[in-house]
Amino acid sequence: MSKLLAVGTLAYDAIETPFDRTEKTLGGSVSYIALAASHFNVEVGIVSVIGGDFEEKHLDLLRSKNIYLDGVEQIPDGKTFFWSGKYHNDMNSRDTLLTELNTLADFNPKVPDHFKDAEVLLLGNLHPSIQMSVLDQMEKRPNLVILDTMNYWMEHTPNQLDAVLERIDVLAINDEEARLLSGEYSLVKAAKKILTKGPKYLVIKKGEHGALLFHEDHVFFAPALPLEEVYDPTGAGDTFAGGLSAYLAESRHISFDRLKSALIHGANLASFCVEELGTGRMENLTRDEIASRLEVFRTLTQCVIELD
Amino acid sequence: MSKLLAVGTLAYDAIETPFDRTEKTLGGSVSYIALAASHFNVEVGIVSVIGGDFEEKHLDLLRSKNIYLDGVEQIPDGKTFFWSGKYHNDMNSRDTLLTELNTLADFNPKVPDHFKDAEVLLLGNLHPSIQMSVLDQMEKRPNLVILDTMNYWMEHTPNQLDAVLERIDVLAINDEEARLLSGEYSLVKAAKKILTKGPKYLVIKKGEHGALLFHEDHVFFAPALPLEEVYDPTGAGDTFAGGLSAYLAESRHISFDRLKSALIHGANLASFCVEELGTGRMENLTRDEIASRLEVFRTLTQCVIELD
Repeated sequence: MSKLLAVGTLAYDAIETPFDRTEKTLGGSVSYIALAASHFNVEVGIVSVIGGDFEEKHLDLLRSKNIYLDGVEQIPDGKTFFWSGKYHNDMNSRDTLLTELNTLADFNPKVPDHFKDAEVLLLGNLHPSIQMSVLDQMEKRPNLVILDTMNYWMEHTPNQLDAVLERIDVLAINDEEARLLSGEYSLVKAAKKILTKGPKYLVIKKGEHGALLFHEDHVFFAPALPLEEVYDPTGAGDTFAGGLSAYLAESRHISFDRLKSALIHGANLASFCVEELGTGRMENLTRDEIASRLEVFRTLTQCVIELD
Repeated sequence: MSKLLAVGTLAYDAIETPFDRTEKTLGGSVSYIALAASHFNVEVGIVSVIGGDFEEKHLDLLRSKNIYLDGVEQIPDGKTFFWSGKYHNDMNSRDTLLTELNTLADFNPKVPDHFKDAEVLLLGNLHPSIQMSVLDQMEKRPNLVILDTMNYWMEHTPNQLDAVLERIDVLAINDEEARLLSGEYSLVKAAKKILTKGPKYLVIKKGEHGALLFHEDHVFFAPALPLEEVYDPTGAGDTFAGGLSAYLAESRHISFDRLKSALIHGANLASFCVEELGTGRMENLTRDEIASRLEVFRTLTQCVIELD
């Protein structure tokens, strides 16, 4: 079985939506990534940091999904990363109410020996120097390195970010981040510039408007599934990245066509993620549900294109 | 050859974009619709009204594309419908600076005999009573009736609009109009409500974010082509509708699968429309260019979707 190693945050979230609210639920990028990846035939390991307040039941939950936790460092007298956000009525925009870095402020990632030969490495959104440290700890260069980042690092640590970009294969960011990173409004122009910085593939996430994949002169579009109700968008982007990465780890072969399918698999998982508050839906999702919604994606995207 | 009859506006437009400006260029919904449709193997007829100022060279242009103009009434002492707009820097929003209805204010459409048995009828955005009058003049019910409308008619003539909706097959509107017509924010919920009003198919246009097709419980998504530069978005939606309608007229067979392809053909033509100011690109477009960009759409949308 291929190994997928993901570095990112384990967190507690307080979330308010027009439908529901919670004061404390499991969150963080790597929770969503790992739970999404657990639905594929891959060994999933995570590198993260938590405080003494992180509950054993949440570690048990991750273990029950065969997620390897040897890379998760617990700081007994520290507190787990905390995020609080409130969604507006249209569910398309949100306010961050509070971000407490806590143990994340001094995060010093340690890759467990068992995952130093992972075939796929997903570097979640963190300081570029943390991402670089994880990359440096790998015994052999992974077949595929996928990176997520955000506007903050583009603005505050552009040189360190550029150094990481030179060493990765796939960059997955949203449309505003692509515009910021490139200085171009047109996403096609933005992609051309960004692809000269190192990555061979660029994934631009557009939320409810789907995701674009750029590679050389080619472009592919994966739609998001139009949904009757979005219950909680938190983690949808991470779930998308987790599904995409795990699909590629499982399929072992990297090509533009394989990346296309990976985007659809990522979008498929993300469509479930938003159906319940927090990580709930990723926990109870079944293989049959995944397979049957892939059929919906086939109807949604596939057709006969001929001249007449 | 199938016949496609389209009713809509012939206009002169003044357009300002960040790249260019023109004080007077051929415009109006049915110019774009008919020029788009002229690239298919169908007989295209239009019903519209113009003033004495409408230039012979523009009539000649339409004639040269085999567009039948018997349904175009010229009011010698009237003035042609005039629209003036200015696009913002992102090209995604515009201000309407001026709308002069002129001869359009008393438009009394007359369907020419030769097109009273048209297989496909496209009712462009106009007062619902004008759309109804055209429908009533048809000798036999067309195989397919496609309707465009806008927020103004939803707000000011809802009952007359509802009466037309009951008699059509395909409604093509944008996302904000779908939300207004249904009172639902979710486009899936909006579609369900709108499909109870009469149309069997609902096309929701989302501009640069593509278009959705709803039919019974099925949904299909056609992306817009990501472009390096959008030179002038004017008429893209009408071009999309014209291409979609002409493709369906040419293929003679109506089904969900055929509608899917029709959306791709419409998006393909719309991707050309925005490359030049006004109707320019629709005039000089070749069959080879259309065919080769359809290949780009294939790469853009088609992939293998399997579980593992």
